[in-house]
This record gives sequence, C-alpha cells and structure tokens, in this order.
Amino acid sequence: MGSASTISFARGAPSLDIVDVDGLKAAAAHAFENDPAGTTAYGTAVGYPPLREWIAAKHAVDASQVLVTNGSMQADAFLFATLVQPGEHVVVERPTYDRTLLNLRNLGADVHPVSLLTDGIDTDELAALLEHVGDVQLAHVIPNFQNPAGYTLALAKRHALLALAKARNFVIFEDDPYVDIRFRGEPLPTMLSLDDSGSVVYASSFSKTVCPGVRVGYLVGPAALVDEIRVLATNTYISPNMVAQSIVNEFCRSGAIDRSIATVKAALAERVEVLTAALERELPEARFTPPDGGYFMWVELPEEIDVDQLFDEATARGVAFVKGTDFLLEGGRNTMRLAYSGVTTDEIDEGITRLAAAVRAIEAGATA
Amino acid sequence: MGSASTISFARGAPSLDIVDVDGLKAAAAHAFENDPAGTTAYGTAVGYPPLREWIAAKHAVDASQVLVTNGSMQADAFLFATLVQPGEHVVVERPTYDRTLLNLRNLGADVHPVSLLTDGIDTDELAALLEHVGDVQLAHVIPNFQNPAGYTLALAKRHALLALAKARNFVIFEDDPYVDIRFRGEPLPTMLSLDDSGSVVYASSFSKTVCPGVRVGYLVGPAALVDEIRVLATNTYISPNMVAQSIVNEFCRSGAIDRSIATVKAALAERVEVLTAALERELPEARFTPPDGGYFMWVELPEEIDVDQLFDEATARGVAFVKGTDFLLEGGRNTMRLAYSGVTTDEIDEGITRLAAAVRAIEAGATA
Repeated sequence: MGSASTISFARGAPSLDIVDVDGLKAAAAHAFENDPAGTTAYGTAVGYPPLREWIAAKHAVDASQVLVTNGSMQADAFLFATLVQPGEHVVVERPTYDRTLLNLRNLGADVHPVSLLTDGIDTDELAALLEHVGDVQLAHVIPNFQNPAGYTLALAKRHALLALAKARNFVIFEDDPYVDIRFRGEPLPTMLSLDDSGSVVYASSFSKTVCPGVRVGYLVGPAALVDEIRVLATNTYISPNMVAQSIVNEFCRSGAIDRSIATVKAALAERVEVLTAALERELPEARFTPPDGGYFMWVELPEEIDVDQLFDEATARGVAFVKGTDFLLEGGRNTMRLAYSGVTTDEIDEGITRLAAAVRAIEAGATA
Repeated sequence: MGSASTISFARGAPSLDIVDVDGLKAAAAHAFENDPAGTTAYGTAVGYPPLREWIAAKHAVDASQVLVTNGSMQADAFLFATLVQPGEHVVVERPTYDRTLLNLRNLGADVHPVSLLTDGIDTDELAALLEHVGDVQLAHVIPNFQNPAGYTLALAKRHALLALAKARNFVIFEDDPYVDIRFRGEPLPTMLSLDDSGSVVYASSFSKTVCPGVRVGYLVGPAALVDEIRVLATNTYISPNMVAQSIVNEFCRSGAIDRSIATVKAALAERVEVLTAALERELPEARFTPPDGGYFMWVELPEEIDVDQLFDEATARGVAFVKGTDFLLEGGRNTMRLAYSGVTTDEIDEGITRLAAAVRAIEAGATA
C-alpha cells in the first residue's frame, strides 16, 4: 500500500509551529545581557536564583521549598532516590507514565497500580489497598490531563487523597507538567496549595509552556527535603543548566510565557476537536473521553482488536501511536495513547483515516 | 583586623572577564535561527547530534562512541553507575578531585588511592597495588593539570598505564576537562588516542572553554558502553539540554571557541606567573610546581602549619582556599589547593600577602 510519510500520534511533544522560537531567541539575548555572571557561572544545585524565586511566587511558597532541575524527569529521579528504598510500597495510577513505572521498578520499589477513572485515581480502591498493604511510602499522581489517559483528578478526590495521605502518612507526589495547558473548563487547585500537613511534593516543567529542549523542570516540597535533594543534586551535576534556566527566567518575566501558553492552548483545543470528530467519523466503536487540556487521549477499542497487531497494521499504513500496554503492568491489550500535541489538524484527519483502515484490515482478517 | 572583601582561591571557575559573553549571545541567536526544531525539541539522550559529531571529529572517533551530557560530572555519575558495583576495587590518584572521591565512596566502591607525583600517578605503585589487590574495575586519572595538584601525566607513564590496563583488564577513566587550556609546553596525546585495546573511557567538558553555566560535558568510549549509558541517560532525564548543546555547537563551529581558549590561556598564564612570584616573595618556604595549564596549584607548607588552623586564620584575613585534606582520604594536613582561575592578578598579589600574614600569625602563636 502507498506509504506516505508517517503521521505520529506517539510523541508527547509540541509541533514546532506552537513553539515561540523568536521569543526564546530574545530571552536568550536578555539572559546574557542582563545577568552575564549568573548565566555563565556554575550557580548552585538548587537552580538559577531568579527563576527559583519566580516559581516560588507562582506557587505561593518560600524559595527554600523549590529546586529547579534539568527537566522534571531528573526531579523525579532525585525524589525517588531520596524517598524510596528497595522493597518499599509505592502507589501509581493504572495506567501511568511508562518512564515513571520503569524508574520505580528499577529502584526495586513494590509498585501497586490503582485504577484511574475518568475523574482520577480511584480513592476508594486506594483506601482499601492501604488497609491491605500497610505502610505506603509514596503515591504518584498526575492530577491534570494525565499521561497517558488525559483524565483529570476531581476536586473532591484531591481532598480525599490529602486526607488519606495525612491519616496514613505517605507522600503524595503531585506530578503536574500539564497544569498550565488547560484549554477547557476551570482550573482546579493543586494538592500542594490545599495541603496543610506537608504531605505533598509537587513537580512541574517548562517543557510544555516554553519548549522541551530547554530541559527545565522543578520540585516544590518541604524545605528540609529540598535541602536533602540539593546535596544529591550537587554530587550528581554540581548545578543544573544556568544558561537554560536564565533563558526560561527571561521568558517568564517578559510575559512571553503567557503568549506561548495561549498559542499552545488554542492549538491543542482545535486538535482535540478534530481528533474527536475524526474518531467519531472513522472509528465510531472507539471509546474515549476528550481531555480538557494536555497532550494525550486514551482510546479503547473493541476487545477483539489486539494492540500489537494494530500497531503493525498501523505502521504499515504510516501511522504511529503508543500501545496502552506500555503504560500498564498488565492488561490494556485493546487500548492506545494518542498524542495530539505534535500533529496538525490535517495530519490528525489523515492519521485517523489510516488508523481506521488498520482496524478494518484486522476485522477483515487481512494482515499487513 | 580590616576585613576587605574576600579573595577566593577556592573556586575552580573562570572570572567573568575571561568568558566570551558576547560570543555566547551570538551563538544562542544562531542556535535558534539555524536549527529551531533541533534546539527546542527533546532530542535524544546521546546529545545534540551536530555537537556529538563535532566532538567525534575532534577525537577522531565515530559519533556512536560519544555521549554528550549535562556537564562532565553527570557523565562521571553515569559511568560509575554503569561500571562500578559496591565492593569493587577502584583506583584514584592521591590527591584527587573531592567530588569523584565522594561519589565513588557513596557507590560503595573500595577506593585505592595511588600517589600522584609531579609527572602523574605513580605507575610502579599502581603495578604493585594490582599484584596485591587483584581485579581492579577502573582507574580514575586526570592526566592534564590535575585537580587539585596541577600536575600532568608524562607520556611514558601514559603508555605504562595503557599497558597495565590491557594486561590487567581494567578501564582507564581519562578525566580530561583541562586539556585544551594548556598555556605552556607541548600538548601530549590523550590515552584515548594511544589506546589499541578499548581500555579507555574519556571525559571532558566545555566548562573551561565555553563557560561552566552551560553545563555541557561528554564521554567517549566503546560504542557498546555508550549505548548502555544511553539507556540510563534516557531513563534519568529523557535527553540532556538541547538548547545549551546547540549554543555550544554554534560556539564551536563559528570558531568562537578558539578565540575563547586563547583568551583563557593568556589570562591563566599571567595569573600563574603572578601567583608564583607572590608565593616566592611572601612565602618562600612554600613548595609547589607551577602548572603548565589548568586552574590549580598545589601548595605544601612546612609540617608545623596545620591547614585547619590556617583556613581559619586566612578566613579572618579575607582569603579563601580549599584544604588539601579535602582531596585525600588521609594526610595532607599542611597542604592546600590554590585556584587561580577566578582571581585577577591584583587579587592574587593581595591574596597571597594576606595568606602569608595568616601563616605568620600561626608561627607567632597568635590566633584569630
């Protein structure tokens, strides 16, 4: 069959047209002009001080509670290395981000997946698990536009989670890289802002609001924990990237970030609309909940569609996605994650047409 | 006593006047103009491809042998995590870089310090140690203008080390961040370039030739090892800083790096000259070997001068250095490391005058 260039729903990354390259170039010039010493020197392991202050103000915390890192994955790695010992119990959402799952397992954690519903983690199932398992060290939750599902944790459940964490003395790791790219509905308060018992460690990133290549993420948590991670960060890399953090600082303080977020939101909203319409038209049997923000939509196909086979058929037709099984320890054989962040509306339309052809080929018993 | 602002011989970092801030600003503009997609996207865990190619060409290796990281400390951390298991034997120089020592001990390695002579690690002592200890996993060597001693490994010893590594099947970790800032004498070939048995893993950095805040370092080694570390890097941070690496790439390819290196070398040569003259004038009893490059000079004082006491007396007089004991598991109580990279010639003169006053105060039995 005719193999046009592949349309990828696989990568959770923005297309170049929604990255403010000119704004970044200007921010870089300002970084070197306004603070040549701070931008070019080693700096400190906690991050570039003016950006640390900006993040602290954004979250209404003291700067001593903030550690700025080389991307939020590095923040996760530091946090896990500090808090999680081999054999300790850790809760994750089912499904969840594949790298988080991998890193927790590599650390030797005893990972307990708890069902993710369309309004977030099943807090009743979690409560029952806590009765059964005993001491849990940490619960990893992606509250907004979850990766891979696109679902958002409801306000009542945020409160329920905080109550559980306080009562059972575990840390909620609120992993929130998508919070600022909500394109529909009202923002919900972070658990960090609702917390009154020091139960929450919060992480976010500028990958979705500035660009991924700048690799700037951060942690917000109790000052003592941040200081402990500072030592680990110092020994790992002396300091994170001052040039990149100074650029991000200029991008934030000039207001460029607000324009960038507006551009990203408008594009994502339109892409979800087109994706939803294309799925309804081409694959009416597919089940999904259109997200209110973020990059991802979780799609469930009829049980007889095996995702491994679909992946091959789709590849043969020039369309890529990530199998739902990648985000689960077991199950999900008829599910997939569609990222709409890196594709134009035309590509979405054509990509879903190709995907539907792959499904029809499986139904017809014709293989690639 | 009058406390003017502190003169610091402590920090191994360049003063701002020898950083090419304008060149960096221009390189940043070119990075966003010439490759907006590659500069702003996630990229890959092995580093920004054009910079990886530039480094490969510099060392006459294939690009598959290069991994570009967020500073060379991060490269060290990846290498140690990949090669060194708890309880394994590792050789370091005595004295050596304090963070390397700390990280190897934190990994649970059995660390064996081998004497560093003015022409580099004592290869006879190492050979004897190998007979005694048995299997050594890795030997960490800083061949040029060693941190903290400033000494350089002689050519004959480079060959001797390679022969030992080949015969006894250990990895030479050639940690070479200062190689390009030789300001006197002829460059020596890297062990990487002399190696015919895949015994060498090489690391270097752009901290001394571009600026530290850009946090770009790299590893060169066997392609299979680099690929193994690539997986670890992916799981740690997805990818290193593309913005910073793209800036470094433009800085290298435009020739700015050659002008930057010339500036740095000229300044360091002058600073060593002034430092040597000041020590000979103010502290004729001090013993040292003026380095041919790099940032550091190791100074030995008479045995009765205790470095802890000297540190306090110096602090009281507004002069800072790092105690020699920080670079050793034991001994060195009358030694210190003077970094001349971050101080002007006037500051060097004044700083050594203050340091001598601190020594005289101890000799006179007067304490701060």
